[in-house]
Amino acid sequence: MTNEDFMRAAIMEAEAGMRAGRGGPFGCVVVRRGEIVARGSNRVTSTNDPTAHAEVTAIREACAKLKTFQLDDCELYTSCEPCPMCLAAIYWARIPRVFYGNTRSDAAAIGFDDDFIYQQIPLPPEQRAIAMRPLLRDEAQGAFREWADKNDKVRY
Amino acid sequence: MTNEDFMRAAIMEAEAGMRAGRGGPFGCVVVRRGEIVARGSNRVTSTNDPTAHAEVTAIREACAKLKTFQLDDCELYTSCEPCPMCLAAIYWARIPRVFYGNTRSDAAAIGFDDDFIYQQIPLPPEQRAIAMRPLLRDEAQGAFREWADKNDKVRY
Repeated sequence: MTNEDFMRAAIMEAEAGMRAGRGGPFGCVVVRRGEIVARGSNRVTSTNDPTAHAEVTAIREACAKLKTFQLDDCELYTSCEPCPMCLAAIYWARIPRVFYGNTRSDAAAIGFDDDFIYQQIPLPPEQRAIAMRPLLRDEAQGAFREWADKNDKVRY
Repeated sequence: MTNEDFMRAAIMEAEAGMRAGRGGPFGCVVVRRGEIVARGSNRVTSTNDPTAHAEVTAIREACAKLKTFQLDDCELYTSCEPCPMCLAAIYWARIPRVFYGNTRSDAAAIGFDDDFIYQQIPLPPEQRAIAMRPLLRDEAQGAFREWADKNDKVRY
């Protein structure tokens, strides 16, 4: 299968999910060594899970199937440029290569907040549309010191 | 309960999760009308889920419990400034107010990538550490046009 075939599989997920009423028009596949290991479509509204975007859904499924929390030998094909949540999830999953169809501007044009959130992320916390306030940093530091000293920790 | 009490509950989640070997030293609670409705700690390594950060875990649990995909009447308390994945999840969940303990720099100091990912998100796709390539935008547009015309869609 070619890159285009995998992208068409992601687009098919987007269309099928939307038509089945599972959520927005977004689909994704995760590919490993030339084979699709996981598929995802947006399921936000049907599962009451605002994090159930196509990419997050596919990454969670790929990790469950491969029994790992790192997909550094995988590629991700998504029918739309990932939103910041999904993009950061891709970084955390160590996926080195991403193909995308629609852009964040295309998503904005049909009413999605991806572009707005891209503009919010780089702002200092106090300038965001969400009120963000630091609190009890001194007490929160304890867990971090304990982690730094922990001998049996599993890094990620 | 005060704001400080809720933050201490989040810190307790961080410590308990780390000590139980569930994942990194991060904890979170979601509060609605003065009551904790969901708790989360990082479970990345123990559940093979790179998206199972404390905030995502708590948001998913709060939404499941309240049977909604929007938490616009909730506050979130997290033991560390949310990473971009969690911050964007907070936007998608419409949570209007966030309290945080440690900062992204504190997280970087004990080996976590939060700050690196914050630097990556605003870059143009072609300048990121992850290879990102547009593909078949014309074909991907079909699902978006269909969504725009869809009469029975559930917006989020």
